[in-house]
Amino acid sequence: MHDRLFAFIGGDSGPWRIDSIRPVVGESLHWAPRLEIVPAPPMHVEPGAGVAWKLLGVVSNIRYTRRDELTKLQQVSPPLGRPEATSAALIPIRKTAAWWDLSQDERREILEEKSSHIALGLQSLPAVARKLHHGRDLGEPFDFLTWFEYAPSDASAFEDLVAALRRTEEWKYVDREVDVRLSR
Amino acid sequence: MHDRLFAFIGGDSGPWRIDSIRPVVGESLHWAPRLEIVPAPPMHVEPGAGVAWKLLGVVSNIRYTRRDELTKLQQVSPPLGRPEATSAALIPIRKTAAWWDLSQDERREILEEKSSHIALGLQSLPAVARKLHHGRDLGEPFDFLTWFEYAPSDASAFEDLVAALRRTEEWKYVDREVDVRLSR
Repeated sequence: MHDRLFAFIGGDSGPWRIDSIRPVVGESLHWAPRLEIVPAPPMHVEPGAGVAWKLLGVVSNIRYTRRDELTKLQQVSPPLGRPEATSAALIPIRKTAAWWDLSQDERREILEEKSSHIALGLQSLPAVARKLHHGRDLGEPFDFLTWFEYAPSDASAFEDLVAALRRTEEWKYVDREVDVRLSR
Repeated sequence: MHDRLFAFIGGDSGPWRIDSIRPVVGESLHWAPRLEIVPAPPMHVEPGAGVAWKLLGVVSNIRYTRRDELTKLQQVSPPLGRPEATSAALIPIRKTAAWWDLSQDERREILEEKSSHIALGLQSLPAVARKLHHGRDLGEPFDFLTWFEYAPSDASAFEDLVAALRRTEEWKYVDREVDVRLSR
């Protein structure tokens, strides 16, 4: 449908091998052995044979990051697809209605001033490449699909990041989270 | 598809009579005599006979408004569907890539500190009811569809609002705008 839309398809095929699927909060996703990421998929095609689940997300504009933070992030963010980045994670999350009912300044305050979400992300750079996809306004079951890629030797930078985020004030507003680990 | 999604369908039927369609910036929309607003439409159904255009938008979370502003807005915002509000406007707009590439604080600064978008809207309340729908992340031709309803005797409050907004710094980032006026 459009070029910022991506489908994450768990099923029998795809370049990424799924190593584990773990529910962190709420309901898990069904097991699937492989993951395929399809750019600009048709929004309305139903999953066919060999597909366990299909999650849609759109790459959107920046929602919270300030200019000074964005400049720092852009300076050190690596691209996806680095040859050495053979480990990946897909972390779909959903936030509560209470989160979405907050005003913009209230969400920014929780996300960064109280939870250091942006600063924590910076600490994992340039080791951990990531890309955020939004699903909420598409009517998807998850509000966000974040895709991470890193070299196995940088696994601790990634583990530190997700562990730190899960301890934040912001994460109190997460009511569903699944942690999918992959390799290629 | 989901309950925050709406289709605005210009064609041969619908409760609203279209009085005029005027391109403000960029390409117009085709003429249609009537408008129907369909809640929770299927996203993938193609327009059938008697349909000139179909625009999709989703009611999303607040993007710029602060708590103090939101509280004021909520106190004086009227509902849609007031019996006396027989005049309406649908104003689809698209913003430039330069707008969408800005950081969150840069967009807020232009939208409110330089352009008083929220303050101008407040001035038209409670006369002009409005509802904002987002289309950009759906891959739609317009980033925003704003729907306004007001009594004919309050037309000047509405005209003052749109005229003031079109003079702002923010509107320099609008590269397509169509002004559809309706009545019932």
